[in-house]
Amino acid sequence: MNNLTPKQAYEKLYKISKRLAYFSSVLSILGWDERTYIPKSGYKYRSELNAVLGEYIHDEWTKDYIGELIEIAKNGELNEIERSNLYWWERSYIRSKKIPKELLINHIKVSTVAYQVWKEAREKSDFELFKPYLNEIVKILREKVQILGYKNEPYDALLDGYEAEITAEEISKVFEELKGETIRLLEKVKEKDFKRRLINGHFEKEKQKSFCIYLLEKIGFDFSMGRIDETTHPFATRIHPGDIRITTRFYEDNILSSIFGTLHEMGHAFYEMGLKEEYFGTPVGEAVSLGIHESQSRFWENIIGRSLEFWELFYKDLRRYFMHFENIKLEHFYLAINEIKPSYIRVEADELTYNLHIILRFELERDLINGKLSIDDVKDAWNEKFESLFGFRPRNDSEGILQDVHWSSDMGYFPTYTLGNLNAAQFLYKINKDLGNIYELVKEGNFKTIYNWLKENIYEKGSLYKPQELLEKVTGERTNPKYFLKYIEDKIEKLLSID
Amino acid sequence: MNNLTPKQAYEKLYKISKRLAYFSSVLSILGWDERTYIPKSGYKYRSELNAVLGEYIHDEWTKDYIGELIEIAKNGELNEIERSNLYWWERSYIRSKKIPKELLINHIKVSTVAYQVWKEAREKSDFELFKPYLNEIVKILREKVQILGYKNEPYDALLDGYEAEITAEEISKVFEELKGETIRLLEKVKEKDFKRRLINGHFEKEKQKSFCIYLLEKIGFDFSMGRIDETTHPFATRIHPGDIRITTRFYEDNILSSIFGTLHEMGHAFYEMGLKEEYFGTPVGEAVSLGIHESQSRFWENIIGRSLEFWELFYKDLRRYFMHFENIKLEHFYLAINEIKPSYIRVEADELTYNLHIILRFELERDLINGKLSIDDVKDAWNEKFESLFGFRPRNDSEGILQDVHWSSDMGYFPTYTLGNLNAAQFLYKINKDLGNIYELVKEGNFKTIYNWLKENIYEKGSLYKPQELLEKVTGERTNPKYFLKYIEDKIEKLLSID
Repeated sequence: MNNLTPKQAYEKLYKISKRLAYFSSVLSILGWDERTYIPKSGYKYRSELNAVLGEYIHDEWTKDYIGELIEIAKNGELNEIERSNLYWWERSYIRSKKIPKELLINHIKVSTVAYQVWKEAREKSDFELFKPYLNEIVKILREKVQILGYKNEPYDALLDGYEAEITAEEISKVFEELKGETIRLLEKVKEKDFKRRLINGHFEKEKQKSFCIYLLEKIGFDFSMGRIDETTHPFATRIHPGDIRITTRFYEDNILSSIFGTLHEMGHAFYEMGLKEEYFGTPVGEAVSLGIHESQSRFWENIIGRSLEFWELFYKDLRRYFMHFENIKLEHFYLAINEIKPSYIRVEADELTYNLHIILRFELERDLINGKLSIDDVKDAWNEKFESLFGFRPRNDSEGILQDVHWSSDMGYFPTYTLGNLNAAQFLYKINKDLGNIYELVKEGNFKTIYNWLKENIYEKGSLYKPQELLEKVTGERTNPKYFLKYIEDKIEKLLSID
Repeated sequence: MNNLTPKQAYEKLYKISKRLAYFSSVLSILGWDERTYIPKSGYKYRSELNAVLGEYIHDEWTKDYIGELIEIAKNGELNEIERSNLYWWERSYIRSKKIPKELLINHIKVSTVAYQVWKEAREKSDFELFKPYLNEIVKILREKVQILGYKNEPYDALLDGYEAEITAEEISKVFEELKGETIRLLEKVKEKDFKRRLINGHFEKEKQKSFCIYLLEKIGFDFSMGRIDETTHPFATRIHPGDIRITTRFYEDNILSSIFGTLHEMGHAFYEMGLKEEYFGTPVGEAVSLGIHESQSRFWENIIGRSLEFWELFYKDLRRYFMHFENIKLEHFYLAINEIKPSYIRVEADELTYNLHIILRFELERDLINGKLSIDDVKDAWNEKFESLFGFRPRNDSEGILQDVHWSSDMGYFPTYTLGNLNAAQFLYKINKDLGNIYELVKEGNFKTIYNWLKENIYEKGSLYKPQELLEKVTGERTNPKYFLKYIEDKIEKLLSID
């Protein structure tokens, strides 16, 4: 081992990384299958199957010689791409190596049970059922952050797992500004009638499906390298280059769910489709973080998909598929799909209030992990915070603290949703600078130009830069809420001007 | 290693075997995905993905300590199941270990190219294109059989890969008897009008699909542990217990293809569904051979599915789905689905002449591998043999020597199709002995009793016995063509009696 040159060591790492990427591809296809077409009795064997594969990948990547190869390779003269790959390889090696296997296995086991209990607790709307399991999860996470180490505060270690090198302090500053402005903007629209009731009706599933496929094709989703299926919870996944899949769901009493769900997952898929194929199997060939990924889903779902110009282009098609809209003016449809209205449930929230749901969760989990909040107090804390943000209290646990699945396994994930919203708007302003008014392109159906800009500036970069570095390279600064606030305030003015 | 007790060694083998079974499950799901839902551009990465996984399984199972564990375990006091597992483990260890990796990889590489060339050659109906690749394949196979070793003649080594411990000599005797009788029976029906033209028409795909699902449910296919999809070439596959999948194809101008394709694959699936779950991951928990597997697909497709009693039960349903049959008498439908008529193409052949297609291939590939026939003479040999069996010559290579995909990668597979036909009839006679006339059960729709007999006597045995041993245990003798010949002659008499 020691007589390898840095170049040889790098090559070895490259080969191992690429080989393990194929095993990860297998996990992706299993995940897709489990959520789409597996027969009911098949589930039983899948957890074992996933465990065997996951353990194999983990074992291969935590062997001591991986660390040795990294040390040798670091001494070489590296180009930008090699440097970046080594950064991520070392990072994941260290993170995986630090966590003792017993802790890892215990975490998986507790999560599996906690998930089942959470489902039952949510159904019964009884937080007391879930509390002991949440307690276990928090204990495990607190142990984990101590082992992993952190910059300023324990919670940073969890954030770092989803959004490399960002800190709770930085997020907190961003969120504070966002919170105040959001509450101010919310005041402005509280009397507004968004005419949401106009688009109630019955929408046949098969027709919804055809319309979604029609939209995907028009926008430029390449079905030769992708597909769409139906699942309870929509998702996007890349198996490997040339095979990127999305799913959506169809409610026959709500057409918006499938349309915007599809556009959301299409955004994720675009990112994956735009990664550089030649880098497949190495970090530089992969998406860099959840906060960047979510910026793309939100960009296509909200910034493009909920714009007036988008529907100026497609409203006639929607009317062709669904008679319902014959007597509804385009402007009223636009109003309805942008209704801003505080509500209990995060996943049903609008563009503006969505972030309040996230801020709430961020503040609570930060305090939980940092030891400033105990499990016994977390439900009251949720309800009080909720009231201070939204002006009313959850009526029960199901629509309060029990609504999300995330805490049955982990924390640190939530903030990336709002980072995604903010980053999306930040990219928008840069696109407008580079390409002129993006909505002129949307009106013409020229999505290709928009996609190409995103591909060149974001998708193809993969993980070449850390997430906040990428934002700086592309937009000149780190995540700054002012772009989103400008975007949403402009939109609100427009919405308010429609009768 | 050497201080392990035989019991401990066996336990270790058991664990390794079970772990590798999960990796094989992954290959199954990849195979299913590649033939059903993968987007076009996804193919490119799949050969590499399959190779990485296949190589891993191969490498793990050919490590020296596997051989050492086997040696130690053999010294223990073994029960019947353990003895059988050890037999198969040793067999596959020795076979895998003997083949040098370069030969293995070369075989895969040549096959991949040969398959592409075969497709082109078949399209152009030009054997000359394919000849050099067939030559390569035969060379590789001749090398392989020398390395593997054989009982009487080189070809035995290939047979043994698909049907353990059977020899070409034994098959040859069975086939000789079958050949003579088949030609005699063919004479009897050559003037018969089977009224096949009556069931021409246009059959909507969606309706065919519904009808096939209806049939599957009525017969007892358990959709909680299985599913059906559409592919160009129908197949059945078990991912792992609780997840068995079949496919079929739909021709809108030919309803028989989807119905009998579905029943055929259902037979394969029944075998896989009936294996003992507790033995999953060990040989005893797996199907024993192709010749037994095919006996089950043929049993359900032909012996059950093409019987008059089956359609006495289901003809009213078929009429419900398809108006076409309103004015066609049941007896004429029965005639039509059993039409016996010599034809060029194996996969379109009827129950009787199908075996002639197999005998032709068996004789040719036996001579090729044993060195009695050269590549330069194989096409002429095909055409001459074909004429002597069928009474006419193929008009071109596409409907002659180029019709099947098999020779682009291997030989020794074909005979198992006819073994399947013969074994199916042999089981039938035993079932009739045990349960009374099976067709009384069919008429009542009592498929459960038939399935249970097959499960108890065949499916649950897995690979506990070698294939011919299983036949002896169940029917009292090895594969004997007289049962099939009796079955088909009785059927022909019945068909001839219908006007």
